[in-house]
Amino acid sequence: MRILGIDPGLVNTGWGVIEAEGGHLRYVADGTIRPPRTGSLAERLMALHAELVEVIKAWIPDEAAVEETFVNKNPLSALKLGHARGIALLAPAEAGLAVSEYPANLIKKSVVGAGHAEKEQVQMMVKMLMPGCTFASADSADALAVAICHAHHSATKRLVGGIMAGAAR
Amino acid sequence: MRILGIDPGLVNTGWGVIEAEGGHLRYVADGTIRPPRTGSLAERLMALHAELVEVIKAWIPDEAAVEETFVNKNPLSALKLGHARGIALLAPAEAGLAVSEYPANLIKKSVVGAGHAEKEQVQMMVKMLMPGCTFASADSADALAVAICHAHHSATKRLVGGIMAGAAR
Repeated sequence: MRILGIDPGLVNTGWGVIEAEGGHLRYVADGTIRPPRTGSLAERLMALHAELVEVIKAWIPDEAAVEETFVNKNPLSALKLGHARGIALLAPAEAGLAVSEYPANLIKKSVVGAGHAEKEQVQMMVKMLMPGCTFASADSADALAVAICHAHHSATKRLVGGIMAGAAR
Repeated sequence: MRILGIDPGLVNTGWGVIEAEGGHLRYVADGTIRPPRTGSLAERLMALHAELVEVIKAWIPDEAAVEETFVNKNPLSALKLGHARGIALLAPAEAGLAVSEYPANLIKKSVVGAGHAEKEQVQMMVKMLMPGCTFASADSADALAVAICHAHHSATKRLVGGIMAGAAR
């Protein structure tokens, strides 16, 4: 299963693609989308959308996962972040992908084992879990972490599903 | 000039189309988009996007205007609203329309003459400015008000532009 992880933001949107097969993870690609900072908000969102569509076309993921980014105490920042998140959820859904969302502390817990890990710990673990993986930016490292979190959770879901199906027989 | 106004929201997105010609306003159409409340956030945003695309295809506006909806004191509500606003800005931009944004108090001032008008006053003035206009919901009335605000502001811009061009000669 090929998973696209997205860490959305209006200034920087990180993305990362991994492959998960039977508990084994493999790094595929990652990158950072930086929409032009000039132009109307609508134009910036359109640029973000167009680049996400290109990423999905290029790497053909099976599923997507988006970080439930930390909700800032400032409502205006939260509103701005919401614009970018809306686009990050839309683009993979339009491509027919199921899109899951994971809160930041669950992502950290999946990758590092603790919900309050530092960014550097997350980055180190992403590299340890996928040897040979380098990443374009801190945002794309976060996006790879979202993808890893989704891989763990869907593996657990499938396992539980299998056990339940077995018990029902 | 045909203008699409949008009052975005995840539960209800109001839209309204008007025509503005030399200070004269004419009601064209309005409606309310209510994405299914079940399904993932990504699916709900996709439904909102698809319906907005249909509205634009059906009514072929020349320009669009989106309300800068009141930023709630609750960051989580602001984040949710941001998702819907992102889609409301994206859809017309993708169709090649210039998308303007106006804060709620400026819209009220344009329509009623006061920045702190009640919803009912706005609705009454929308009907007075465009005789024969009825509206599908309070949200589509707000969307028509955004469109009226844009009509006034672009008329002023053109007038000022004309005077400046005249002065430069």
